[in-house]
Amino acid sequence: MATLAAQKQHKVTIVGSGNWGTTMSKLVAENVQANPHLFQQTVQMWVYEEECIIPKGSRHYDPSSDMSTKPQKLSHVINTLHENIKYLPGITLPSNVVANPDLPAAVKDSTILVFVLPHQFIPRVCDQLVGHIVPFARGICCTKGVDVSEKGIRLMSEAIGMRLNIYCGALSGANIASEIAQEKYSETTVAYDPPPMDSRHPTPKVSPSSSQVDLISPSRVNPSSRSAPLIPLPSDYPPLSRENIRKLFHRPYFHVRIVDDVAGVSLGGALKNIIALAAGYVDGLGWGDNAKAAVMRVGILEMVRFGKAFFGDSVKTGTFTEESCGVADVITSCMGGRNFRCAKRSIETGKSIYEIEETELNGQKLQGTSTAHEVHTFLKSQGLEAEYPLFTAVYDILEGNVKPEQIPELIEPKD
Amino acid sequence: MATLAAQKQHKVTIVGSGNWGTTMSKLVAENVQANPHLFQQTVQMWVYEEECIIPKGSRHYDPSSDMSTKPQKLSHVINTLHENIKYLPGITLPSNVVANPDLPAAVKDSTILVFVLPHQFIPRVCDQLVGHIVPFARGICCTKGVDVSEKGIRLMSEAIGMRLNIYCGALSGANIASEIAQEKYSETTVAYDPPPMDSRHPTPKVSPSSSQVDLISPSRVNPSSRSAPLIPLPSDYPPLSRENIRKLFHRPYFHVRIVDDVAGVSLGGALKNIIALAAGYVDGLGWGDNAKAAVMRVGILEMVRFGKAFFGDSVKTGTFTEESCGVADVITSCMGGRNFRCAKRSIETGKSIYEIEETELNGQKLQGTSTAHEVHTFLKSQGLEAEYPLFTAVYDILEGNVKPEQIPELIEPKD
Repeated sequence: MATLAAQKQHKVTIVGSGNWGTTMSKLVAENVQANPHLFQQTVQMWVYEEECIIPKGSRHYDPSSDMSTKPQKLSHVINTLHENIKYLPGITLPSNVVANPDLPAAVKDSTILVFVLPHQFIPRVCDQLVGHIVPFARGICCTKGVDVSEKGIRLMSEAIGMRLNIYCGALSGANIASEIAQEKYSETTVAYDPPPMDSRHPTPKVSPSSSQVDLISPSRVNPSSRSAPLIPLPSDYPPLSRENIRKLFHRPYFHVRIVDDVAGVSLGGALKNIIALAAGYVDGLGWGDNAKAAVMRVGILEMVRFGKAFFGDSVKTGTFTEESCGVADVITSCMGGRNFRCAKRSIETGKSIYEIEETELNGQKLQGTSTAHEVHTFLKSQGLEAEYPLFTAVYDILEGNVKPEQIPELIEPKD
Repeated sequence: MATLAAQKQHKVTIVGSGNWGTTMSKLVAENVQANPHLFQQTVQMWVYEEECIIPKGSRHYDPSSDMSTKPQKLSHVINTLHENIKYLPGITLPSNVVANPDLPAAVKDSTILVFVLPHQFIPRVCDQLVGHIVPFARGICCTKGVDVSEKGIRLMSEAIGMRLNIYCGALSGANIASEIAQEKYSETTVAYDPPPMDSRHPTPKVSPSSSQVDLISPSRVNPSSRSAPLIPLPSDYPPLSRENIRKLFHRPYFHVRIVDDVAGVSLGGALKNIIALAAGYVDGLGWGDNAKAAVMRVGILEMVRFGKAFFGDSVKTGTFTEESCGVADVITSCMGGRNFRCAKRSIETGKSIYEIEETELNGQKLQGTSTAHEVHTFLKSQGLEAEYPLFTAVYDILEGNVKPEQIPELIEPKD
């Protein structure tokens, strides 16, 4: 009976086409091919249109071709060459990835929206989506980071879910995009735990005890509320169960573990950048591997404390200590990530990290420095800086209030 | 009243004087100076006597001195120069470290015995100690590793405790000795949870529910039993509380956390070497930081499963996922430890790891290869290899049964 009911397949759109978005399109497109009973065979990838030209070093460079001599639309180049020559050069995309610069057209009828946008574009893009998505769509947010201010903490997935009135989960892990694009083995964590609202529960109840509402920080000034109840998936679609969501992302080279804890998964991807700065400082001091491992360990426990303090029991210790989005992402970020490298370099050169950002990142900003500031502002507003000595030490180092050499005494347990 | 009762101070002996033993002597000697009300001011360090000569590169080299021209007793050199020129060259020891080659004399009247011996010497040295220690002494075992065979698992601390009929805790962490000797910041974990047996509990009861007995693997064929009840500490000594044990080890550059879980602390120091081999394999394949972090994460969870399966509820998940002896030691070992480096090199050169041991370690054996074999023998005897896919994969790679490239499929979750 169940097989008769499911006559449709899910349409998937990847909202974003940078380095990570294009990588996600590739692996999702491989998975829809492997699961034709669940998913439509074309994967839409929304492209923020720009002009590009095939560079001389590219394997596609051909001086007799227009694409190598005249600026072309990026979406056209992707659909012609099956390669995002600008953001993921050298990787061939499956031919069922279709780049589309028209946002409403790209998401039309899609039941699954995978968000892979730079942090700052999420509100604007969501506003443009209102009225263009099916009301029973579900989102997965692959953008790392959270919005933290004096007023509280807002998860990216939560911002998307509330603007579009859909359920939105999160994907995060030790995921350097270029390695995954090359099909080098890695893992990720998907947080996916929608409240009961499928066709077998025709009256979805989004009560304060449902998992969606549990994500709201109790410290937020204005507790959020939805404008309307969540809309159940029609029964002629296969259910969007955890297992089917896993089939959308899991590959032999990209192992997926599904958890419930959206807040924990989202926080891990943000807070790890503060830890990476601390690890870079002690490594820059030449203190060796014991010290680096120690600040990583202390940092993971501050993540746990932060999650539990501000998101309550929906956050699980194991999300940080046992999952790819926690301990593994900390490890990867502290082995060679940008925050780690810039902090280390700032010690080695005697320059402030802001000077390093200027000179070595072409003015791009590190995620860790802004997260450290935002988290500090929030903790200070709560009078809780002392409970997070490593996060506070990183802020104070950035501000020049303390020296990196003081990290051990600052984080020394006071028991 | 309590202060009147404590008229004596604890005498401390470090049993061992290698790289790690000499480092422990240095930091313990600093701590007894800082806590004269608790500890006697001289720290005995038992030295396995050998002859040595000051090498030309040493800052102590002086061609007009006997010590630079004729072989001398190592204990004499240490006590004259306050440096262990053979095993910890370049580090000045506090003058209250006294090297002593006479084992019974070194431990005479000592209430605290810190064991820092190579694995294989522990049984013989303990046998030589019987009858020479005070019956109410307590031990702390700093030797990593466990004895695993088809019959079961024996912790080093347990082997010491049973041979000497004393309580023996354990110390383990992300502790590269040379970095600590240079007072570079690090952390460690001390497992210390003696059953009630101090002078306020004059009839110590070592029941099957006490923590000492909980350490015994239920799978062991012959459950161990003490020959006699543990002897309480006389009331004229300061109590050997967790806090006082912490004061013996904690330094501004060596942060100590005390836990109850002796089995978990001991297992972490052994099993991490298997994980380091796996990390070395994937790094040798050029798979990058995502893959390395993934096998580390999977390995930590296999540690947890192993501890809980064979040591029951006395083992805590957090010992592996939150403490220096767990996650931090895994990190340090997978960043540049010997097991990691040799496994990586074996992939890069196409040689077996046994050839690498021969050519690059002067025939010394890696801890990881023997632990992987022992653990596999034990798991096989229990029919549980499939429950530990990473440990089993490392064994099968060592044996040539599978290729390192197969690690992702071998550890892929089957849910």
